[in-house]
Amino acid sequence: MSFNTFGRVLRFSTWGESHGPAIGAVVDGCPPGLALSEADIQPFLDQRRPGTSKFTTQRREPDAVRILSGVFEGKTTGTPISLMIENVDQRSKDYSDVAKAYRPGHADYAYDAKYGFRDYRGGGRSSARETASRVAAGAVARLVVPEVDIFAWVSEIGGDAIDPAQFDPAEIANNPFFCPDPVAANRWEKLVDDARLDGSSLGAVVECVASGVPAGWGAPLYAKLDSELAAAMMSINAVKGVEIGDGFAAARLRGEQNADPMRPGNEGPVFLANHAGGIAGGISTGQPVKVRVAFKPTSSILIPVETVTREGEASDIVTRGRHDPCVGIRGVPVVEAMMALVLADQKLLHRAQCG
Amino acid sequence: MSFNTFGRVLRFSTWGESHGPAIGAVVDGCPPGLALSEADIQPFLDQRRPGTSKFTTQRREPDAVRILSGVFEGKTTGTPISLMIENVDQRSKDYSDVAKAYRPGHADYAYDAKYGFRDYRGGGRSSARETASRVAAGAVARLVVPEVDIFAWVSEIGGDAIDPAQFDPAEIANNPFFCPDPVAANRWEKLVDDARLDGSSLGAVVECVASGVPAGWGAPLYAKLDSELAAAMMSINAVKGVEIGDGFAAARLRGEQNADPMRPGNEGPVFLANHAGGIAGGISTGQPVKVRVAFKPTSSILIPVETVTREGEASDIVTRGRHDPCVGIRGVPVVEAMMALVLADQKLLHRAQCG
Amino acid sequence: MSFNTFGRVLRFSTWGESHGPAIGAVVDGCPPGLALSEADIQPFLDQRRPGTSKFTTQRREPDAVRILSGVFEGKTTGTPISLMIENVDQRSKDYSDVAKAYRPGHADYAYDAKYGFRDYRGGGRSSARETASRVAAGAVARLVVPEVDIFAWVSEIGGDAIDPAQFDPAEIANNPFFCPDPVAANRWEKLVDDARLDGSSLGAVVECVASGVPAGWGAPLYAKLDSELAAAMMSINAVKGVEIGDGFAAARLRGEQNADPMRPGNEGPVFLANHAGGIAGGISTGQPVKVRVAFKPTSSILIPVETVTREGEASDIVTRGRHDPCVGIRGVPVVEAMMALVLADQKLLHRAQCG
Amino acid sequence: MSFNTFGRVLRFSTWGESHGPAIGAVVDGCPPGLALSEADIQPFLDQRRPGTSKFTTQRREPDAVRILSGVFEGKTTGTPISLMIENVDQRSKDYSDVAKAYRPGHADYAYDAKYGFRDYRGGGRSSARETASRVAAGAVARLVVPEVDIFAWVSEIGGDAIDPAQFDPAEIANNPFFCPDPVAANRWEKLVDDARLDGSSLGAVVECVASGVPAGWGAPLYAKLDSELAAAMMSINAVKGVEIGDGFAAARLRGEQNADPMRPGNEGPVFLANHAGGIAGGISTGQPVKVRVAFKPTSSILIPVETVTREGEASDIVTRGRHDPCVGIRGVPVVEAMMALVLADQKLLHRAQCG
Repeated sequence: MSFNTFGRVLRFSTWGESHGPAIGAVVDGCPPGLALSEADIQPFLDQRRPGTSKFTTQRREPDAVRILSGVFEGKTTGTPISLMIENVDQRSKDYSDVAKAYRPGHADYAYDAKYGFRDYRGGGRSSARETASRVAAGAVARLVVPEVDIFAWVSEIGGDAIDPAQFDPAEIANNPFFCPDPVAANRWEKLVDDARLDGSSLGAVVECVASGVPAGWGAPLYAKLDSELAAAMMSINAVKGVEIGDGFAAARLRGEQNADPMRPGNEGPVFLANHAGGIAGGISTGQPVKVRVAFKPTSSILIPVETVTREGEASDIVTRGRHDPCVGIRGVPVVEAMMALVLADQKLLHRAQCG
Repeated sequence: MSFNTFGRVLRFSTWGESHGPAIGAVVDGCPPGLALSEADIQPFLDQRRPGTSKFTTQRREPDAVRILSGVFEGKTTGTPISLMIENVDQRSKDYSDVAKAYRPGHADYAYDAKYGFRDYRGGGRSSARETASRVAAGAVARLVVPEVDIFAWVSEIGGDAIDPAQFDPAEIANNPFFCPDPVAANRWEKLVDDARLDGSSLGAVVECVASGVPAGWGAPLYAKLDSELAAAMMSINAVKGVEIGDGFAAARLRGEQNADPMRPGNEGPVFLANHAGGIAGGISTGQPVKVRVAFKPTSSILIPVETVTREGEASDIVTRGRHDPCVGIRGVPVVEAMMALVLADQKLLHRAQCG
Repeated sequence: MSFNTFGRVLRFSTWGESHGPAIGAVVDGCPPGLALSEADIQPFLDQRRPGTSKFTTQRREPDAVRILSGVFEGKTTGTPISLMIENVDQRSKDYSDVAKAYRPGHADYAYDAKYGFRDYRGGGRSSARETASRVAAGAVARLVVPEVDIFAWVSEIGGDAIDPAQFDPAEIANNPFFCPDPVAANRWEKLVDDARLDGSSLGAVVECVASGVPAGWGAPLYAKLDSELAAAMMSINAVKGVEIGDGFAAARLRGEQNADPMRPGNEGPVFLANHAGGIAGGISTGQPVKVRVAFKPTSSILIPVETVTREGEASDIVTRGRHDPCVGIRGVPVVEAMMALVLADQKLLHRAQCG
Repeated sequence: MSFNTFGRVLRFSTWGESHGPAIGAVVDGCPPGLALSEADIQPFLDQRRPGTSKFTTQRREPDAVRILSGVFEGKTTGTPISLMIENVDQRSKDYSDVAKAYRPGHADYAYDAKYGFRDYRGGGRSSARETASRVAAGAVARLVVPEVDIFAWVSEIGGDAIDPAQFDPAEIANNPFFCPDPVAANRWEKLVDDARLDGSSLGAVVECVASGVPAGWGAPLYAKLDSELAAAMMSINAVKGVEIGDGFAAARLRGEQNADPMRPGNEGPVFLANHAGGIAGGISTGQPVKVRVAFKPTSSILIPVETVTREGEASDIVTRGRHDPCVGIRGVPVVEAMMALVLADQKLLHRAQCG
């Protein structure tokens, strides 16, 4: 099935293809009375916007969002908020290569197998362009959880990781990589540029922390906060792995190392560690919620790869066009948006059951 | 919210606590006419059953499943299948410690924060005992996808990994660790036993492969096959990380390394690699679907950990009782069950939309 | 699909067949901390219980409910509440007639067309016995909306209606028909008994009022309070029509007749009429919520009806066994239960979005 | 909650207010490969379009639909279909009356009670204008069930019913009332015009038949075909009652009268009657599916009605503006659309479970 909707009571649905007239999202279930205008959304879209440096795709999209419903006199009404972003730079490119042969690592073959055919222009529905809709929806979700502070960064590109000792959140906005370590950012300039010039691409790891989440959001089982976050993050294009807290590293610890001891504090218990990433038994503990997300290198590269055509003949393919040499970079605002959307949904769900 | 249901058209709901009279699952949406009896389910429960070796909890549960509805004259009728497993060995233990103080790493504090109180007997709803219901439901799901072969194994315990060169699926059933490498299995005997004798616990990594999945199951976005798998696996107790295909390792590859080249084959395209883990753009490619799952060491240990009481006073706590020194081991049949449940659901969803 | 679940955040799933070992319901999403024991549920089951007068089926079922999960120390924990009712009086009847030929008006033919076969014992899943599960779940839902008072009655049997001038709620419990008009109750004794002796059956109309519902529950569109009530009532066996407020009679009024004028009152606006049945634009107005439900005469009758066999041959069929001459009578506690379940769900949904 | 989505696997979400820039629908889960263009949708919108006779509102809306996604080279791709209709005739009216006082029978008071405020321009989200989105979505749904023929008509206005003996489907398109009885259509001209000139309004009954539905669509319980239809119809603005088949009249029949006897036929069983309206046990029987829907008279009338202001003071209100004297008339294409949407969803659900 298609199922282009995410969330349980704060739900959003996205629509649109890379090269159609527009893309958009409908956010349903937003509480009424929140101040909302395009100005609350646009800055987040600008963060994700392509064409802002040579390290991202050169497609020029203003990504200007319009609110078509759900807001009256500057406030949300509680009815669906329709957000639309027009596609502007749909360069009249020749897609005959992509139409004829499958790009390995892309969804081309899987789409044809499922649907019998596909919109091959720029990836169609499978394009990362869809994530603009998520970022717009996420900006609305942030208004639902004003008590929460969410920020993400790139912690690793092509296997080159930041130095945790150099971590400085203030640096994130100072370079085109959302990198909190200025030394790593310098290294990455050359690393990413080299990959770009090679016609290759690089993977990345994005980390995200949400602080201010009170204890008690989430659920014991299939709406577990960590399960919802895993679904949300893994639904982003190019993501292949998700960790909560220590993630796979926790599998190498012993029980006493992995415990997050507690001590009395002035406002409730204080944790002495956060291996759990702020979630125990599927429910937030009041500690910062921490997620790590692995982005594969984009499959759109200029280096020829062996493939087959729709007719089943052997071929080589290169993916010309305007592509991100490291798609994980622009994943940062998308990861933040998904974090906001999950937390806002869980907040409302918690309120439903527990008042 | 509680939301103890998973799946979209093949859905299952579980209920029950560790020390209540019974636990169970209701499987809804199963196709009619499938041969089903308790004998189709029991072997999978026996795999997960506690008390079968000194490397798992000593709680003695026969875990005998009863089918209470949805089957007539040996075949599924298309109506809900109610599965019940009685709790037998609810030893009259003293839970006053757990009632009074929070076990770090457990859901105790989070439950209290959410619900105001909790069933503290053996973890209540947050107990891994719930996973027996999943295994039972998963056995039904397997009947829905007879074309698929699913098997999982432990690939790493406490940081000690198997040697891929020694991988032999036939070995998995020959040791109490679901270990496909007999040499590693030998090492793990001492490793796990030492942890047990120390009153400590170990994490583990479980891998699962489903072969025979045809190309075309899944969906472009929020019902992506990988997103559903991530949600399913992360909903299992003690899981902190999920990878599809190469997972985090893909983030360290370049585009041309991570591509899965295709060549013509006798029955459609043949892939020359499977970095993607059998999923592209959220849809199966026809290659084996591969998942890796990180289990943390259980927090139930005999080594004292600093904590606070419900009244907010400092305390130390040890978790007496019968616990798994490495909860990931018994996670193997649970991971398989969740894989079966997701694939069965996706098969039916695919059939709904694409006929 | 099967979809044996109803509700959005307070959800219940039912399972079980007429002649299986048991039937049951799982209630998910119930707020924590509510006092709940079997004694809160049993009285409602006793109201619906068969065999209490000659005007209902003579099947003898104690309908004793067991709570298997979700309650600890007498209070709901917020986790799923599993309710089970054993089937006791499954008389070893000969069902070969029903197995061979389709009972007109029953689900027999439709089930075979859908599933290829069916559990023909006593109607299987399509038996009104399933409604016991709803009544049990409804008893839990009532605890979620203590501010609401729900009661239903039979207003018409076989076309013979009560006299509204004689309406006395106190009479409802005084006769086997849930009839608020003692004069009508007298008439119905003969009416129903005659139908029973004829081997025939009668339809009925059930009305239900919920008072105490505050203004603001419901939603503008597809989760409209009236839409949810219509789905809930039409999902009850034998129901063929649902009206909110004046229902079809409103279609014969002019706008000024159908308006519910408002005047200022001490505690907010006071309505001078309630044609709308307490719902405007899908949202409660604070007036009593009113529903009317039409039950057809049961199709299980001793008068022969023309039919065909599974092999497609002409036949006549009579439905021997123990049947209700007027199934609408025992529909009263079921209608009340569905009202409670819808209102409880809507209360929690309202709290989710509007705090 | 808002919940502006309907359907289970073929789902549509609507958005937009009466006086916002646009309204729209997103249709998700549509099978791929169906030929679809605006020309498949526009004729149904034209049927519902206001301003086509003096018997409907004089608001002039071209209701031109645009497809923004989900279609490539003239065929559905299986991805979400975004449909947008711009609002053109948003006359700069003075809404201060409506802003200040509650129109009885309208959603004004309920919205304020729920959300704290409301978009009062032309009813905002509660305006029947939303139904244009449904009609557009319904046109897509019709393509999913080409085997089904759906048509609806007005059978009664203001209590004046058609003569069943005069029923001629060919007449429906010949008058502005969707009336299949030309004599009744003549009477209604005066009836509706008189109401219009009085500044009053009239209720109506709409009937809808879907023929060609094969036996087997639907489900035993909470996704019953009749339950889904009831929810769908009751979700339409101004609807207060829904009947399946004989509906309330069935409550006045005896069992043998209400049975639909079966005889062998050349292509399976033949039914000798259709009291059930084509549905037994929640599943289609292969007979025509029949629904009757009661529309109340619109509450927007020029006759003053007693009300209160937002400040709680007594007032009288008249609803100036451009309103339908009988909103049920334009309900005909909406009822057809909802029938198509429910049937298409049920077809796909049936295919999911039963292949």
